[in-house]
Amino acid sequence: MTKGKELLGVACLVLTAVWMGHYHGGYAWDSSPQQFNVHPLCMVMGLVFLYGDGVLVYRVFRNESKSSVKILHALLHMMALIISIVGLVAVFDVHNKHGFPNMNSLHSWCGMLTFILFLIQWLLGLGFFLFPWASTMLRRWYLPLHVFFGLVLLAMAVGSSLMGIAEKVIFSGLLPFAPEEVLANTLGLLLVCFGLLVGYVVTRDEFRRPPNPEEEALSVHFNTLSEDSRPSTP
Amino acid sequence: MTKGKELLGVACLVLTAVWMGHYHGGYAWDSSPQQFNVHPLCMVMGLVFLYGDGVLVYRVFRNESKSSVKILHALLHMMALIISIVGLVAVFDVHNKHGFPNMNSLHSWCGMLTFILFLIQWLLGLGFFLFPWASTMLRRWYLPLHVFFGLVLLAMAVGSSLMGIAEKVIFSGLLPFAPEEVLANTLGLLLVCFGLLVGYVVTRDEFRRPPNPEEEALSVHFNTLSEDSRPSTP
Repeated sequence: MTKGKELLGVACLVLTAVWMGHYHGGYAWDSSPQQFNVHPLCMVMGLVFLYGDGVLVYRVFRNESKSSVKILHALLHMMALIISIVGLVAVFDVHNKHGFPNMNSLHSWCGMLTFILFLIQWLLGLGFFLFPWASTMLRRWYLPLHVFFGLVLLAMAVGSSLMGIAEKVIFSGLLPFAPEEVLANTLGLLLVCFGLLVGYVVTRDEFRRPPNPEEEALSVHFNTLSEDSRPSTP
Repeated sequence: MTKGKELLGVACLVLTAVWMGHYHGGYAWDSSPQQFNVHPLCMVMGLVFLYGDGVLVYRVFRNESKSSVKILHALLHMMALIISIVGLVAVFDVHNKHGFPNMNSLHSWCGMLTFILFLIQWLLGLGFFLFPWASTMLRRWYLPLHVFFGLVLLAMAVGSSLMGIAEKVIFSGLLPFAPEEVLANTLGLLLVCFGLLVGYVVTRDEFRRPPNPEEEALSVHFNTLSEDSRPSTP
């Protein structure tokens, strides 16, 4: 199941790269129209592929030490954030250079909302779960919200990508069912399947981390020792 | 929380009605461009508003008898299906009359996939849970899938609506930040909030149906009596 998700994610990246590389003149970083092509590639790579991988580390590495997995979760999402910042800079720079308005379309409204909520979620995750700043009660209150918004943000990222694809196809002025449109629409459907598969694996019990008596003992020990009873695990 | 969701849903309907009524010449059923306007209104009313209400009946009426709630769930989703069929007929008819291609855009691919999966999910729900055709084991296997795809379909319906809004805004050839575009984009954000709120209420434990000893007893009784051990509740 997770291998299928990895294959789907790579297929999404390849289709995005081929779409922009073959049909729209490849990539550049010189404020030319080719710099725009960096935007979809970075957003799919950051906010969908790497983001989805980051969501799933607790399921894929469910037998590894929880603290290592937690660091990997934070690192993958940090990479996702950095790559999506590059993707945002790419499009804002091209828009500014060529006099196109920014933050005009529903795609940009939803995409920016997704990015800002993701940044907030990442910072809160860092403060609540990776650094010992929050009390057990606060952690327990925030964990289900963190998980819920984790999946909401993936759905919003896929939804924003779909709008971006739909807009790009219209602006490219293609004939109905042109090969480029079929490729772009197929990319859209694969993104939906990727989101669906990540959501399925995360919400199924059989992929959950098995209870680990050693971790539980450590957690209890840590709680007894520390003044404000912080658990070692989110 | 559920009142807020109802308010949001009504706001989505009103904004769609105003958008199509005020900016696109109102409604008709004569294959004129005004017939197209029936499409967004019906899809938002059927696949988002009524669909979301149908999803939530188990939470809103969590203290009513389960069999009544089950019938209400099926009826609301049947209404959602019928209204969305009207919305689909509206757009196919206008396209055919004016020589526009059908099933060309990513919006139409995702929207049709959502509709077909919803129809399948409704038929399966009917067969598995409302009529006594499935064994307990089959019901137990299908229930989590029914719940999972229930939320996936809501996300897909909202995503398809967002693409439809983005396409309509582009085809309307508006100036950046024209009042019509701001209204349409606001509608998009409200649809996202509606989906988010329904997803939140459905996945929180505090809104779940409290265990009912009478129902449990009836279910056990029914299982003991019936040959294939069907539970009375999904």
